[in-house]
Amino acid sequence: MAAIVEVSVIPVGTGNCSMGDLVAETLKTVKSEGVKFQLNAMGTNLEGNLDDLLGVARKMHEVCFEHGAQRAVTIIKIDDRRDKDLTMEYKVDSVLERAK
Amino acid sequence: MAAIVEVSVIPVGTGNCSMGDLVAETLKTVKSEGVKFQLNAMGTNLEGNLDDLLGVARKMHEVCFEHGAQRAVTIIKIDDRRDKDLTMEYKVDSVLERAK
Amino acid sequence: MAAIVEVSVIPVGTGNCSMGDLVAETLKTVKSEGVKFQLNAMGTNLEGNLDDLLGVARKMHEVCFEHGAQRAVTIIKIDDRRDKDLTMEYKVDSVLERAK
Amino acid sequence: MAAIVEVSVIPVGTGNCSMGDLVAETLKTVKSEGVKFQLNAMGTNLEGNLDDLLGVARKMHEVCFEHGAQRAVTIIKIDDRRDKDLTMEYKVDSVLERAK
Repeated sequence: MAAIVEVSVIPVGTGNCSMGDLVAETLKTVKSEGVKFQLNAMGTNLEGNLDDLLGVARKMHEVCFEHGAQRAVTIIKIDDRRDKDLTMEYKVDSVLERAK
Repeated sequence: MAAIVEVSVIPVGTGNCSMGDLVAETLKTVKSEGVKFQLNAMGTNLEGNLDDLLGVARKMHEVCFEHGAQRAVTIIKIDDRRDKDLTMEYKVDSVLERAK
Repeated sequence: MAAIVEVSVIPVGTGNCSMGDLVAETLKTVKSEGVKFQLNAMGTNLEGNLDDLLGVARKMHEVCFEHGAQRAVTIIKIDDRRDKDLTMEYKVDSVLERAK
Repeated sequence: MAAIVEVSVIPVGTGNCSMGDLVAETLKTVKSEGVKFQLNAMGTNLEGNLDDLLGVARKMHEVCFEHGAQRAVTIIKIDDRRDKDLTMEYKVDSVLERAK
C-alpha cells in the first residue's frame, strides 16, 4: 500500500526572501532517493511506502541546515489509505474528471 | 500582488473513505469563482488577490457541510510575497530548472 | 456554533531566526479583536464564529508585513463541527481525562 | 538540540464525528514513549530529539488504523532551531510576556 506525503520546507532567518534555490536542493535529495514525486507551487508530493517517505522528508528538512539556515519549519501532510491503493495521478485525474 | 494559497478540505465522520466526490465539488466552487487554480494530489492551489482567495477557501470549506458532513477540518496555507510577483507556474518551473 | 482555528505565521527572509517578537505582535492583534484564544508552542488557537476567526487570521498574517517582512507563510487549520458545540477547553480536557 | 513537533491525526471515513477517543489513544502512545508533550485544542506538541519525535508521530498515525480507520490524514509541523535551544514553555511564556 502506498501513501502520499506532501512536504514543505520553510527556512527561517536567512535574510533571503527567495526559497527557490533551497526547494531545488530538497528536490535533488528527493531525486537521489529515487522516490516518485510531483512538485506543486506549495510543496512536493511523494508517493510510496510511508516509512520510506518520512525518511525522505527528514532529509529534505535537513537540507535547510546544510545550506546555511539556522532554523526551519517543515510541514509534512500524510494521506494514508489502507482499503485501496492511492496514486497521485488517480487522485488528481479522478477529481478533474468529476469536476468537469 | 498575487498570493498563492493551498486549500485542503477533509470531511470527518462521513462513513466514506473516499474524498474524491467532495473534492470535485470544492473544485466546481473554485471554477465558478473564476479564480486561477492548480489541483495537486494533496490540495488545490489558488493564485490571486489574497482576500479573494480566502473567500474562495471559505466557500470550499462550506461545501463539506452542503454535502452531508457534520464536521470538517480544512487546512489553508498562504504564501504571500510582496517584493516580487509570484505565480504558480514560475514557482514550479524555476525549481524544476534548478534541480536538473 | 463555534469553530476552532489554529493560526501560525512564519516570516520569511527577515534575517532574524527569532519569531517571538512577531508572534507577540500577532497576539496583540488577537487581543484587540476580543476573540477567545489559547497560545501554544506551535500556533495560536482561536474559538468563535468561523468568519470572525478568519478575519482575525487575515490580520495576524498582515502583522508580518507591518513589521518589515517581505514574505510570509501562514498556516490556518480549521476544525468546524456543526452537530455539537466545540470549545478549546472541552477538547483538551476530555482527551486528557480519557488518556489517564 | 531539541526540536518541537506538532502532530494532528485525522481519521477519515469512520462514520464518527468525534475524534476524542482516538486522540486519547494517540496520547497514550506519546506517554508510553516517555516524550515531553503538551496537548492543545488542535494538536499535540512534542519536544525532544527530532528523529525520536518523528518516530513517535509515526506511531500516533498508526493508532488510527489500530482503532478501525481505513484512512487517516496526519499533519506534522516541525520547528527546528539550531542556534539556540527551544522549549515549549519558553516559546509560550516569552510571547505572552511580550504581548502584555
